[in-house]
Amino acid sequence: MQREPQAFDRVLSSMCTTPHPVAREAAERFLATNPGDPGTYPTISDLEAEAIDLLGEVAGLDDPAGYVASGGTEANIQAVRIARERARVTTATTETPTVVMPESGHFSFQKAANVLGVDLELVPTDDDHRVDLEAIRACVDKTTAMVVGVAGTTEYGRVDPIPELGEIAQSVDALLHVDAAWGGFVLPFTDHAWHFDHAPVDTMAIDPHKMGQAAVPAGGLLVRDETLLDELAVNTPYLESTSQATLTGTRSGAGVASAVAAMTELWPDGYREQYERSQANAEWLAAELAALGYNVVEPELPLVAADIPTATFEALREAGWRISRTGSGELRVVCMPHVTRTQLESFVAALDALESEPEPRTTQ
Amino acid sequence: MQREPQAFDRVLSSMCTTPHPVAREAAERFLATNPGDPGTYPTISDLEAEAIDLLGEVAGLDDPAGYVASGGTEANIQAVRIARERARVTTATTETPTVVMPESGHFSFQKAANVLGVDLELVPTDDDHRVDLEAIRACVDKTTAMVVGVAGTTEYGRVDPIPELGEIAQSVDALLHVDAAWGGFVLPFTDHAWHFDHAPVDTMAIDPHKMGQAAVPAGGLLVRDETLLDELAVNTPYLESTSQATLTGTRSGAGVASAVAAMTELWPDGYREQYERSQANAEWLAAELAALGYNVVEPELPLVAADIPTATFEALREAGWRISRTGSGELRVVCMPHVTRTQLESFVAALDALESEPEPRTTQ
Repeated sequence: MQREPQAFDRVLSSMCTTPHPVAREAAERFLATNPGDPGTYPTISDLEAEAIDLLGEVAGLDDPAGYVASGGTEANIQAVRIARERARVTTATTETPTVVMPESGHFSFQKAANVLGVDLELVPTDDDHRVDLEAIRACVDKTTAMVVGVAGTTEYGRVDPIPELGEIAQSVDALLHVDAAWGGFVLPFTDHAWHFDHAPVDTMAIDPHKMGQAAVPAGGLLVRDETLLDELAVNTPYLESTSQATLTGTRSGAGVASAVAAMTELWPDGYREQYERSQANAEWLAAELAALGYNVVEPELPLVAADIPTATFEALREAGWRISRTGSGELRVVCMPHVTRTQLESFVAALDALESEPEPRTTQ
Repeated sequence: MQREPQAFDRVLSSMCTTPHPVAREAAERFLATNPGDPGTYPTISDLEAEAIDLLGEVAGLDDPAGYVASGGTEANIQAVRIARERARVTTATTETPTVVMPESGHFSFQKAANVLGVDLELVPTDDDHRVDLEAIRACVDKTTAMVVGVAGTTEYGRVDPIPELGEIAQSVDALLHVDAAWGGFVLPFTDHAWHFDHAPVDTMAIDPHKMGQAAVPAGGLLVRDETLLDELAVNTPYLESTSQATLTGTRSGAGVASAVAAMTELWPDGYREQYERSQANAEWLAAELAALGYNVVEPELPLVAADIPTATFEALREAGWRISRTGSGELRVVCMPHVTRTQLESFVAALDALESEPEPRTTQ
């Protein structure tokens, strides 16, 4: 096979990144292991327990439980599954359980609702793209199995008011799930209230393979209480372990080992330094785009959205820039660890050159 | 991180194996790519299309559709999901769709049934561990959304009569799913009728990361007709692609690239040679165990089951042998590519030594 993966020097749209060197080394070393079969692969199974302990430190959870998932989608699906099972047990109603979520929530919850047969109720966000608490209050009722808060939204990097969502969830005996799949490794260095120690969070998605600089696949599902995982367990007749709470069966030891390696190396100082670099890059880019006359959504976390013309967006993509759009069409740049100031300077120069041309559809 | 993955020299229980060198090299090269985001990572997305074409060749399917899943569990869950969605569309009944499966089917179907809210009906197997066709006929009815056949069972390596199951499925307008997750890369070199060209198979699980010698995670879901994948699609607002049919979101480019590398290198001659080696090893082990006086289930595919005393089994595990048991307690040895004759000779010697001791619970 002669093809090479594309270089990362123009990738501004990904929520994944180049793994940290220690994470890459660990992934390569544990490529042929399967934490889904702990009786056969005990070392990687022990490493997974370490990964969960480290994730607990990041997310403010003493005595954490959970597992290393394939990514945020699996973690979100499994959290909804826990809530569905719990609703079946604790309510006498036969109505379909509902999940109440701001419209800024990730599309994986649409997938979860389809797969699991629950109803997803989307609630509007406010002018700054955070959930509207009054709308959530008006939406929850006795059928609500789970309230979702997002700590670092996919499109604008916004953090919902998690403690208030926790109060609302408790008022109807629903679980509170926090989707911090992307935000979880930058939020510890901000003033936001987002984690298990800040609010009555029951379950959380927090992905080492995004801002945590581990290799794909290394997502994280954390649960406050180990009994919540029991809702997911199925028997495993031919494995020497007795049950399995994951959604997938065979799993990647590479992801698990690289998550432990990255977190051991970088938590907390390395992650803090990366957050500061990424956030400074985002603020620099936002200021440059504003200076060029575009409407910019202020980067609360290292993610910038700005309203640029469609033709310009498409010309930049044709020129090789990997960029993406929000649902309402704005340019969206994620300042991941691989995104440098130099790269952003080239991007702004390319954008400026296109916009200065008489015919912006023509690329150079 | 100082820990090392355990060596493979005593691993006899795994359905995964050490990746082929070309698969390992490709996995390492594509570690930082995500086929779940084709707009950002186009090269790996193209490679995934190649992987599906190659899987189609292995499984007798012209113009194949499907994707590289995290493993057999995901492929099985997604196949059941397709059947559930199709049953909703094509039947007027509001009854819960059912999946009819031999009791030899993998436990991932229990997981699928729980997740997806379908009823799983287990049908007995015959004395040689294959599905009882009469029992299947008696079980299917208008609520049946899918009939499952196993081409290489997890516990005994048995192949169900797939063409006959196809006829039964068609008789009630149900889909036929074949679980060839483990068997798919050895069955082409046998006389079994198991694939799309042998029978009206609709969907199939076939995993490159098992007998295909790719790196984890590289499972495969194949569907006869691309429209079956549409049942799985959800919209993806912020990705430059428009919909996603996979169960997970972010996916491992390493798995995809290594699957293409392994299949390009090994299909068909390399796989045939490996099948012949593995099958000869299984037959040798079966003969040795029979000579020692144990009841042995004849290895139709490279998997040996034998009735050895529990104390002996446990002493072998304590001595470091990674072995597992069938649901009824038999020793189960999977002759994967990493399992050599020398390794099996050591294993038989260890077993023989234990059994010759006056107190078999004492390990040496």
